[in-house]
Amino acid sequence: MTTNTRIVLAARPQGQAGLEHFRLETVALEPLQEGQVRVRHHYLSLDPYMRGRMNEGKSYAAPQPLNEVMIGGTVGEVIESRHPRYTPGDWVVGMGGWQQIGVVDANQVGALHKVDPTHVPLSHYLGAVGMPGVTAWYGLVRIIDPQPGQTVTVSAASGAVGSAVGVLAKARGCRVVGIAGGPDKCAYVREELGFDDCIDHRRYPDYLALAQALKAACPQGIDGHFENVGGAVLDAALLRSNAFARFAICGMIAGYEGQPLPLLNPALILVNRLRVQGFIVSEQMQDWPPALAELGQLVGSGRFRPRETIAQGIESAPAAFLGLLKGHNFGKQLVRLI
Amino acid sequence: MTTNTRIVLAARPQGQAGLEHFRLETVALEPLQEGQVRVRHHYLSLDPYMRGRMNEGKSYAAPQPLNEVMIGGTVGEVIESRHPRYTPGDWVVGMGGWQQIGVVDANQVGALHKVDPTHVPLSHYLGAVGMPGVTAWYGLVRIIDPQPGQTVTVSAASGAVGSAVGVLAKARGCRVVGIAGGPDKCAYVREELGFDDCIDHRRYPDYLALAQALKAACPQGIDGHFENVGGAVLDAALLRSNAFARFAICGMIAGYEGQPLPLLNPALILVNRLRVQGFIVSEQMQDWPPALAELGQLVGSGRFRPRETIAQGIESAPAAFLGLLKGHNFGKQLVRLI
Repeated sequence: MTTNTRIVLAARPQGQAGLEHFRLETVALEPLQEGQVRVRHHYLSLDPYMRGRMNEGKSYAAPQPLNEVMIGGTVGEVIESRHPRYTPGDWVVGMGGWQQIGVVDANQVGALHKVDPTHVPLSHYLGAVGMPGVTAWYGLVRIIDPQPGQTVTVSAASGAVGSAVGVLAKARGCRVVGIAGGPDKCAYVREELGFDDCIDHRRYPDYLALAQALKAACPQGIDGHFENVGGAVLDAALLRSNAFARFAICGMIAGYEGQPLPLLNPALILVNRLRVQGFIVSEQMQDWPPALAELGQLVGSGRFRPRETIAQGIESAPAAFLGLLKGHNFGKQLVRLI
Repeated sequence: MTTNTRIVLAARPQGQAGLEHFRLETVALEPLQEGQVRVRHHYLSLDPYMRGRMNEGKSYAAPQPLNEVMIGGTVGEVIESRHPRYTPGDWVVGMGGWQQIGVVDANQVGALHKVDPTHVPLSHYLGAVGMPGVTAWYGLVRIIDPQPGQTVTVSAASGAVGSAVGVLAKARGCRVVGIAGGPDKCAYVREELGFDDCIDHRRYPDYLALAQALKAACPQGIDGHFENVGGAVLDAALLRSNAFARFAICGMIAGYEGQPLPLLNPALILVNRLRVQGFIVSEQMQDWPPALAELGQLVGSGRFRPRETIAQGIESAPAAFLGLLKGHNFGKQLVRLI
């Protein structure tokens, strides 16, 4: 290959994101500089956080620059190296972006991590044994800190993060109840992931009805809630929270587009003496090694079989991403680039 | 005295509380049982939490029973004792309720605490050197945990809790900005309590205008916020929060009557990786001794001169309480019962 095909951010969405906000480009490869490594990406990870980066304005991270390659996690093979620690044939994870081939300054700390595709399938290093898995681990272990016998709920339960939350919580002796969209996802959450129950939020017209369903599924109330969605799900979980419950706020995908979603009953934070805490996993690097060790063990041993939705080819990434924002994916959303 | 005059809850308010929900009663004194102590109350404390107890339904505490003496903190003098640890003339703090004379089972752990009226004035044991002061200490020290140079904001800043939050935060080297209602309260907060600034929320029509005022008063953003009010004040503070800011949720007085107040931008909890935590000081008994030691030192040395609004006579308690809910008090609201 002498060219690289990539997706850049063409325009910032005002409200809902669409295909018109992305642009496909093909560019010639440049010679490597000293210290650089060229990686042929096999998989690109698509994640909800990317939607936030497409907006201008204050957030926890700088916005995605216009006309530059969309950011994204990637796993692939080193095909050329001018850095002594890397040789062609190495398998590496990095933030290679929405493109077939990435060039990385390997002297940057944490820019690349070598992985072993014989331990777990390559794609899982972008999911259960990667950023989404560590996100689940941090929110569950460091914020919710669940005790055996407690009840933990998680929204977007069939997704890359939610599925890992449930498996990790089951491993800690908790009752685990998922919330997901549609009967297929709920069946997967219950039967394949081993959650105790899963609620199909599409069956409930509002947060009060959803709270009734949570009451039935969580007869002892909710001690920990892992939030990937926000909106009605969060309102319902708050209503069923026990005294001293912990809420790990990982995503507010429901509010990423359009108007902010209010929290209807914040007085419950006081009434139930809750701790509600937001976090970003990239700021918690100290916890990646223990998290990846546990997750690698769960996946490598077959106790956790993460589900994936894989789009083919870099040109399919924008549509796959827009589908992810609407919940069309089932499990971890990836793009195969080979 | 052979009779006791007291206020009972006559009816539960639907919406706004009024005088019709209280009833004055005079009853004969009963002989003491073994282990009981009779206390002539000198002061009754009126606090916002009492409004929540008047409602039926789930909260952190059982509702105030109908036709029984309203609960409330009291300080007074032992006038009769059938318990070996107490003798007439002792000064004690307890939960004696809205009445002139209380009878306490002194064998109940924590039912009575002896106090020294030569150390600080008696009434302060119901305020700065009592439950409101410890409330301030716990939320500030255990939840906000402010570092020197950080900015701490507090609503209802001239009140019993808010004033103590500010004095304790100044003692820790913070920039402290209060929010209070009216120019007199703000002048007191700045000039007598020594806050760096105080914002009169009545001057700002909505939370966005209030957030602009907070921006001017907190040029480095908000690292810790102590919430006594909720509603627009909390929305505004969230908008000005720094990354990793801590929000201690102590009161939602704005929502105690009528409809719940939504939180407009909960996504900020994620964006700014906030910790938002509710608490009830009566569940944190381990922290009362260090809190009272520091607060007693601040008040006893004259560095903290808490302000009080004192109504006269048990019959004035209902109107004084309703005024407290509307912010008519200035500093700690008490009723003098002698």
